[in-house]
Amino acid sequence: MNITATSPLTRKLSAFVVLSEAELVVLRRLHQRRRTFVAGRDMVHQGQSGQAAYILSAGWVCSYKLQPDGTRQIVDFQVPGDFLGLRSVLLRTSDHSFEPIVDIEAAEVLTSDLLEAFAQTPRLATAILWAASRDEAMVVEHLVGIGRRDAEARMAHFLLELGSRLALVGMGGKEGYDCPLTQYHLADALGLSAVHVNRVLRQLREDGLVTFRDGHVTFHDHGRLVELAGFDPGYLDQIGPLLK
Amino acid sequence: MNITATSPLTRKLSAFVVLSEAELVVLRRLHQRRRTFVAGRDMVHQGQSGQAAYILSAGWVCSYKLQPDGTRQIVDFQVPGDFLGLRSVLLRTSDHSFEPIVDIEAAEVLTSDLLEAFAQTPRLATAILWAASRDEAMVVEHLVGIGRRDAEARMAHFLLELGSRLALVGMGGKEGYDCPLTQYHLADALGLSAVHVNRVLRQLREDGLVTFRDGHVTFHDHGRLVELAGFDPGYLDQIGPLLK
Repeated sequence: MNITATSPLTRKLSAFVVLSEAELVVLRRLHQRRRTFVAGRDMVHQGQSGQAAYILSAGWVCSYKLQPDGTRQIVDFQVPGDFLGLRSVLLRTSDHSFEPIVDIEAAEVLTSDLLEAFAQTPRLATAILWAASRDEAMVVEHLVGIGRRDAEARMAHFLLELGSRLALVGMGGKEGYDCPLTQYHLADALGLSAVHVNRVLRQLREDGLVTFRDGHVTFHDHGRLVELAGFDPGYLDQIGPLLK
Repeated sequence: MNITATSPLTRKLSAFVVLSEAELVVLRRLHQRRRTFVAGRDMVHQGQSGQAAYILSAGWVCSYKLQPDGTRQIVDFQVPGDFLGLRSVLLRTSDHSFEPIVDIEAAEVLTSDLLEAFAQTPRLATAILWAASRDEAMVVEHLVGIGRRDAEARMAHFLLELGSRLALVGMGGKEGYDCPLTQYHLADALGLSAVHVNRVLRQLREDGLVTFRDGHVTFHDHGRLVELAGFDPGYLDQIGPLLK
């Protein structure tokens, strides 16, 4: 079986670029250095320099920044098909930390690998820039969420975004998805206390919108949840390839 | 005079890549379609599709998202040398709006221009990816600021970041910089009320740290301000070119 043809990253990039055989070969080469990491131990520390990037192939990771006072802001979660630290390859020092939420599998990508791949296949560079742009659009949404959305809309938006992202790599749909996050992860991502997270989830469940329980998110009324969240998935740009 | 050799974008990208003559030619071509825009009128609307990106050569712009309830979250400000809507070229619909804060000059960049430039000069593609990564790192800092920093540290961090960014394109230094932002811009960017912005600025001034008045930011004690903000400029990655 062709590992890359079915890798989550390939599925994801295919949403943007119809990949040629030559591009698939280069993408396959980027997946060569396979690594595993255990849950709960940082793969990359904030401020670390000279580190590689990773392509996540299985499992979930969170990226976060610690503040001098010890509080943690989770910036985003990474799911299969996402890059970890793509930015750091270019920025030389990592501007945040990465922690696997469960045991994960990832391919290590050295800066030199990436620059060589870009030189060989500019379309692949464009596709990876697309993925990076999409990651940034998500961070912008998280900024808007924390700055401007109330707790319920924030949570609803968050659960819907994850659902769309997972659907792109074949791991979820409008019915729901498996999700290993704890209420502490949600709290640190959404700027809420764990108690508040619990209360908001109960409210959404009692309103017949969504249930998050036992590692699974179940959408009961996807349409009404979208409305509550003001969720417009345009920023995720999943409508089909631009580069044919 | 060679316009591109002295363009703010060239200065900025040179912090990352030592540009060859061939790369400068491609970069010059990206600056061909020069446009002006007047203050206060959106250049790009949230949700607009098929629009160009711009390279800002003079003036300031803000990027923002409007919420359904009409509140506005400013995501970032763009200064000379920054791209406007680089992400939107790839993501097809703009995920936010751009509004000139003063009258500006910008070069229009079509998607086809950009993809052609990438194909011709992969190193330039890498440099632009670097700039996009750096933009994302700034949005991450704004997320952390709103999520985790108190109002004074948030303001201090914001003013220091702008100072570093402007220094990179020769428009500011550790003494200060010209800044056309109003207290309403600061409020919408930092998630504070205009009254609160006013109070925080007064406090910082009375503490002998920084004054923002009459369109100018003056750092009185850059070192102490850095300490107050917990400002670590590593994420701006301005220490000199990686690609020689």
